[in-house]
Amino acid sequence: MRILVLHGPNLNALGQREPEVYGSTTLAEIDARLAEVAREHSIELETFQSNHEGALIDRLQAAASKCDGFVINPGGLTHTSVALRDALAGAALPAIEVHLSNVYARESFRHRSLVAPVCVGQISGLGPLGYELALLALLAHLR
Amino acid sequence: MRILVLHGPNLNALGQREPEVYGSTTLAEIDARLAEVAREHSIELETFQSNHEGALIDRLQAAASKCDGFVINPGGLTHTSVALRDALAGAALPAIEVHLSNVYARESFRHRSLVAPVCVGQISGLGPLGYELALLALLAHLR
Amino acid sequence: MRILVLHGPNLNALGQREPEVYGSTTLAEIDARLAEVAREHSIELETFQSNHEGALIDRLQAAASKCDGFVINPGGLTHTSVALRDALAGAALPAIEVHLSNVYARESFRHRSLVAPVCVGQISGLGPLGYELALLALLAHLR
Amino acid sequence: MRILVLHGPNLNALGQREPEVYGSTTLAEIDARLAEVAREHSIELETFQSNHEGALIDRLQAAASKCDGFVINPGGLTHTSVALRDALAGAALPAIEVHLSNVYARESFRHRSLVAPVCVGQISGLGPLGYELALLALLAHLR
Amino acid sequence: MRILVLHGPNLNALGQREPEVYGSTTLAEIDARLAEVAREHSIELETFQSNHEGALIDRLQAAASKCDGFVINPGGLTHTSVALRDALAGAALPAIEVHLSNVYARESFRHRSLVAPVCVGQISGLGPLGYELALLALLAHLR
Amino acid sequence: MRILVLHGPNLNALGQREPEVYGSTTLAEIDARLAEVAREHSIELETFQSNHEGALIDRLQAAASKCDGFVINPGGLTHTSVALRDALAGAALPAIEVHLSNVYARESFRHRSLVAPVCVGQISGLGPLGYELALLALLAHLR
Amino acid sequence: MRILVLHGPNLNALGQREPEVYGSTTLAEIDARLAEVAREHSIELETFQSNHEGALIDRLQAAASKCDGFVINPGGLTHTSVALRDALAGAALPAIEVHLSNVYARESFRHRSLVAPVCVGQISGLGPLGYELALLALLAHLR
Amino acid sequence: MRILVLHGPNLNALGQREPEVYGSTTLAEIDARLAEVAREHSIELETFQSNHEGALIDRLQAAASKCDGFVINPGGLTHTSVALRDALAGAALPAIEVHLSNVYARESFRHRSLVAPVCVGQISGLGPLGYELALLALLAHLR
Amino acid sequence: MRILVLHGPNLNALGQREPEVYGSTTLAEIDARLAEVAREHSIELETFQSNHEGALIDRLQAAASKCDGFVINPGGLTHTSVALRDALAGAALPAIEVHLSNVYARESFRHRSLVAPVCVGQISGLGPLGYELALLALLAHLR
Amino acid sequence: MRILVLHGPNLNALGQREPEVYGSTTLAEIDARLAEVAREHSIELETFQSNHEGALIDRLQAAASKCDGFVINPGGLTHTSVALRDALAGAALPAIEVHLSNVYARESFRHRSLVAPVCVGQISGLGPLGYELALLALLAHLR
Amino acid sequence: MRILVLHGPNLNALGQREPEVYGSTTLAEIDARLAEVAREHSIELETFQSNHEGALIDRLQAAASKCDGFVINPGGLTHTSVALRDALAGAALPAIEVHLSNVYARESFRHRSLVAPVCVGQISGLGPLGYELALLALLAHLR
Amino acid sequence: MRILVLHGPNLNALGQREPEVYGSTTLAEIDARLAEVAREHSIELETFQSNHEGALIDRLQAAASKCDGFVINPGGLTHTSVALRDALAGAALPAIEVHLSNVYARESFRHRSLVAPVCVGQISGLGPLGYELALLALLAHLR
Repeated sequence: MRILVLHGPNLNALGQREPEVYGSTTLAEIDARLAEVAREHSIELETFQSNHEGALIDRLQAAASKCDGFVINPGGLTHTSVALRDALAGAALPAIEVHLSNVYARESFRHRSLVAPVCVGQISGLGPLGYELALLALLAHLR
Repeated sequence: MRILVLHGPNLNALGQREPEVYGSTTLAEIDARLAEVAREHSIELETFQSNHEGALIDRLQAAASKCDGFVINPGGLTHTSVALRDALAGAALPAIEVHLSNVYARESFRHRSLVAPVCVGQISGLGPLGYELALLALLAHLR
Repeated sequence: MRILVLHGPNLNALGQREPEVYGSTTLAEIDARLAEVAREHSIELETFQSNHEGALIDRLQAAASKCDGFVINPGGLTHTSVALRDALAGAALPAIEVHLSNVYARESFRHRSLVAPVCVGQISGLGPLGYELALLALLAHLR
Repeated sequence: MRILVLHGPNLNALGQREPEVYGSTTLAEIDARLAEVAREHSIELETFQSNHEGALIDRLQAAASKCDGFVINPGGLTHTSVALRDALAGAALPAIEVHLSNVYARESFRHRSLVAPVCVGQISGLGPLGYELALLALLAHLR
Repeated sequence: MRILVLHGPNLNALGQREPEVYGSTTLAEIDARLAEVAREHSIELETFQSNHEGALIDRLQAAASKCDGFVINPGGLTHTSVALRDALAGAALPAIEVHLSNVYARESFRHRSLVAPVCVGQISGLGPLGYELALLALLAHLR
Repeated sequence: MRILVLHGPNLNALGQREPEVYGSTTLAEIDARLAEVAREHSIELETFQSNHEGALIDRLQAAASKCDGFVINPGGLTHTSVALRDALAGAALPAIEVHLSNVYARESFRHRSLVAPVCVGQISGLGPLGYELALLALLAHLR
Repeated sequence: MRILVLHGPNLNALGQREPEVYGSTTLAEIDARLAEVAREHSIELETFQSNHEGALIDRLQAAASKCDGFVINPGGLTHTSVALRDALAGAALPAIEVHLSNVYARESFRHRSLVAPVCVGQISGLGPLGYELALLALLAHLR
Repeated sequence: MRILVLHGPNLNALGQREPEVYGSTTLAEIDARLAEVAREHSIELETFQSNHEGALIDRLQAAASKCDGFVINPGGLTHTSVALRDALAGAALPAIEVHLSNVYARESFRHRSLVAPVCVGQISGLGPLGYELALLALLAHLR
Repeated sequence: MRILVLHGPNLNALGQREPEVYGSTTLAEIDARLAEVAREHSIELETFQSNHEGALIDRLQAAASKCDGFVINPGGLTHTSVALRDALAGAALPAIEVHLSNVYARESFRHRSLVAPVCVGQISGLGPLGYELALLALLAHLR
Repeated sequence: MRILVLHGPNLNALGQREPEVYGSTTLAEIDARLAEVAREHSIELETFQSNHEGALIDRLQAAASKCDGFVINPGGLTHTSVALRDALAGAALPAIEVHLSNVYARESFRHRSLVAPVCVGQISGLGPLGYELALLALLAHLR
Repeated sequence: MRILVLHGPNLNALGQREPEVYGSTTLAEIDARLAEVAREHSIELETFQSNHEGALIDRLQAAASKCDGFVINPGGLTHTSVALRDALAGAALPAIEVHLSNVYARESFRHRSLVAPVCVGQISGLGPLGYELALLALLAHLR
Repeated sequence: MRILVLHGPNLNALGQREPEVYGSTTLAEIDARLAEVAREHSIELETFQSNHEGALIDRLQAAASKCDGFVINPGGLTHTSVALRDALAGAALPAIEVHLSNVYARESFRHRSLVAPVCVGQISGLGPLGYELALLALLAHLR
């Protein structure tokens, strides 16, 4: 089994960027923890971060024929990218959406996720642990 | 550590009710699995289901001084009950909101959760597993 | 054949409450007339009124496995209860919605019925006769 | 007593047009059944169908001084014709609005009826039987 | 100089229809008074009423090459007919819009006039006199 | 009979201000023409212009016990002053609202008049002649 | 004279629940103070709190024939309960609405009160004193 | 193969009416060009124009059993006629919607087409050529 | 202690103006009663009425350094004046907002108060007594 | 060259009023700095502050024939005064709009400026320096 | 003559991605067919696809000085990219917008095209043929 | 002191692109002038333009640890990019937003800036000078 974890814009800055909102864990630490979980469950895991909507779509398309599912935190693109949604819908693979912060307790423009309707489910507000739970849920879904 | 799991209206009918939307697992099975997880983590767990908004609020208030946190699936009240939200805010304890189905892929009146802004986070669309992950997240949050 | 007639909040006060809007017939008189119609058509009929959303849902769930259909006037819950709608959808039985007054000639918050999309049809503005016609329509639908 | 039944645009195509939405009964069959009911109750009944808003208004105005009430299914004009509403209001006679399909379970532009506030009541989603029930309700209202 | 006065749906029923809203003057009386004013100012005047949007457009198009301007009360079509608006814009002649009642003191769907932006001006709420004033204003505009 | 004509903000600048929108007639010329009309009809006429909402309200209140009606062009206050509307409603005298330009062919914030619902009627887009017609309509209304 | 004071959901938790929003006075203290005021004015006073919409409606209906008026703080139901509004309208007795906090300085979903249009008046933001003032106002209104 | 081309209100005035918006080609010229294309592809083609919504619906219904598809430019009815949409849906034949001007670069009330969701596709802003392309697309769709 | 009572536009006309809405008590009578209450509580009280937004702001600013709080009924400015709100916020003193009529039972544009979020609380619908209660609440708040 | 600087309501209270929002510089200090800049650039400068919308309009009109441009901070009137906008448009001179605070980071009713569309440009959030920059920009614009 | 065909995000995945929505033709096949048409009409044609908004803008800007027009299918960017719209407007060359699916029969967020108002026209729902027709229309427009 | 000036999509085309909207100054000229100003104030200045949202975010993140503030004109991304806003917020450095044209006098979708709430202030409509003033304001803010 093979999973791609996609991190959208600004997630590379985790740990430094607004720690009161996003916490002090870095993306490398999150990816390391996910790799650990993957090993425990004997699955292949790749992670990819980009600040470029197009690069995320390119990566997602390339993975579509090689992966079994996605964990995705589209960052700010969550609320604005029809193109990313279309890529996800086009891949026709199960995806779990993750948000570190509780987007429903923030500005109203963060309440609508364009990708949510084409995902299996969503986890928000649980910090780095959210990624780990999403990975477990995706595995369960695939089995 | 003591956790209360609250199930809102119609969740008692799980398994029979619209299985294509909510799956075939019964509430008893979900509660049994949660009890198991609780035992593994040596925590006390209570579960409560009601179709009555007032009964849920009564239970929530009673638990506020005896519990450390909540896992809550308010069912249809998610979108309509300011009173339940106020009870949750008044309890001043961490809560994780759970939805079995992906509410963001359904009717637009299900997209707004009145309780979300007073919860730590939300898990939707992951079926019965969502409860289990919420419980794990709540434990992590409390530690 | 077995039919449950559900009356929502304030319908117990019929006859006294705002007679210029709701008329002077009492709920007992409506239920008596419905019982008569049921006898004429050799069907079993039960009626239930409550001011409690939860009690209505409890009753509806209990009836789901024993009835063939519902006539329902959810009163003020028509416009506010996602939980009642979910219970009705979960019962997966034909239902006819009734309103004594013409809700579309009143305040705009009465124009949206949350239960309408999960009912077979709706009758509004025809007073107590509306119940009788709904019962006839439900029988016709079931045959 | 004299009643006019008005059928708006596309109702002449009943039976062929989208039978999964509108059923397979033809308008002639509906009119025949209404004539039968009228005979049983010793009332005069006329029916009129047109795809022309203006023709419906002409007929409605002409009937205003000769009839005692209307049963009306304005078809697609329900949601768009202020002129038809004004004609109905101008006639100052009781009218019952009928829709074959459950308009509240369809596209949102079908949820608003411009004629509803100037009618006594509305029946929707009960198919051809809805006309018959509307006629009975009108008779009861007139007596 | 030649003027066409156009009366939309239901204006033929003036005098009988909702006299508390529209007054007791008949359309014949209004047309007679307009004819009188026309004679005093030595202009040709034609009047046309129809309950048919299409007939109004036909008449308006036919007049476009023979008239110098329009006085128009589109009745209920005011708020719903893009086709009438387009016909008026296509005629490229000055027009004055008239409403007998004060549309801005009535239901909100009467507050928007689709033809207003393609007219010179609008007179509302002044009863039959409004037509006379509109005719005088049109003459002044044309001179 | 005694009439007060009220001119709101910026109408003192008529003739110079945006002549392509408001024309080249000055307010003095309009007032002179209205005085002439008043003489012809043997009525007393006063006119008052102010750029101050409060001054217009003061004048309107003072006139309420001495006048028989108002012609009012509230200028930009038309769309924003609940206080002016309340003063007009409080005076309990007939008023005709005038706008020089066709407000319905301009920015959407000019489409709503707060005073319209408490006036007898409205004339817009007819330039200075609009005032004269309003005065005639008010006289007719008062007789 | 007999007055019923109704407290909605979560008001039983006053004093502990979000004291920075609702203050530290308990409901028992408020009720005691109201009883005192009632004694001073020689009126009978009953108070009732429930977290159940249905229980509040039951109590309100029961009181309708025995009381002269209501003081009501519907808590979160203020913004969501058409059923409670209908019960209040059905009772046809004067009622004063009270809110401890200034609801207009909080989340926008608290700005609309469904019961306000069927009450005599509303007091918000004045804390426990608001109840006392409401009682005085109700007495004055009844005299 | 047999195709009906339907032209809605005001299209008979093409060439004279607002040529800066709609061009100087007449409807006769468009129809002639379409006839030519039809001959080249050996198909039967009929064209029909009316300013009457009802006449368009009548024609559309009559053609439903004799044609294989429609090219339709509903003119102003595009944005207002649910009845025309229902007729098109009822015909259950492929249709291509055409607009001469780019409706999305004009007033916002022209941005919504009620018929678009029941058509195969839409061509707008390409002038008379749009009809020709629509015909070619319809042929391709039918083959 | 020193309190300023501010009355906005049209309140000087109390007693004559729409007595069915605002009652028959005059402003002088209200001010006299407030003076009496002030004497009983040994506080200094000034009252000020103006129809001019600017004059109210001038007075409010002047009082800011000499007073301890405000009772304010901004009349129609309640719903439209950001400037008055800013003045109140700038004064940084406690204020209680009063409305004689129940604004929430009137036109929807009266439901939003721009000053409410910068006041301690609001009293509406209690007539002249509302002022007296507001004064008492302000005293309690200041102590 | 001659410039008028207009300060709207509450700007006279600068320095004392909500210094955390508007800073501690007084209006006199701002005006003194602007006078200095004017001297450096050899231009005539006048400044005017009023809490009265009418007084600002009076001043603006008087200046229209004597000035070359405006710097304007309309305070709370920015969002509510169509009359001030009309005065500015009527003056037909270049104007730069200034706001001390960043209005786009505050309440949503501050996001719309009615005067912005009739100004050359806008500066917000830059404190007192904003005025100075606006003056420089106006000079550059005029040269 | 030289034409650039621009394909936005996800169009490279045509043929595999959601074939029930977008068909089974690949982008290479579409481009090949367009090249053929170009040869037939002796024009130069380039095609460019990218999942990167910025790359599309770069390409569009580079082409602006070398091309005569564009055929553009912006994919998901249609509904979200002001930057792409600005680039298109800045190029000041005729463009035809193409959508493979009928966007007006899909989710409501696909109904608004940001680029439509700066294009000559739009073709939607006609599948790969839409591109070919767009190219023909562009040629006709350029001649 | 070190400042980064960021130019969003299409700003590289300045001078050629829609000069009637954006003027004829090129970006190189703007950058040259800014460099000059920087030299005068002895600060380091870098400028960066990209049509790629991701490239702007990359650059902004890289600068966050080396700069003291930003001047940013996000072009079309102003209204659509949550990701850019998040990057700016994450940098936690003062930024001034610049727009060459007066966005508030253009299409309504340009009125909302997603970055404005996370900037110190905004300058719009002042052309190239706006950049220079923004730089001065940033320096003043940093000192």
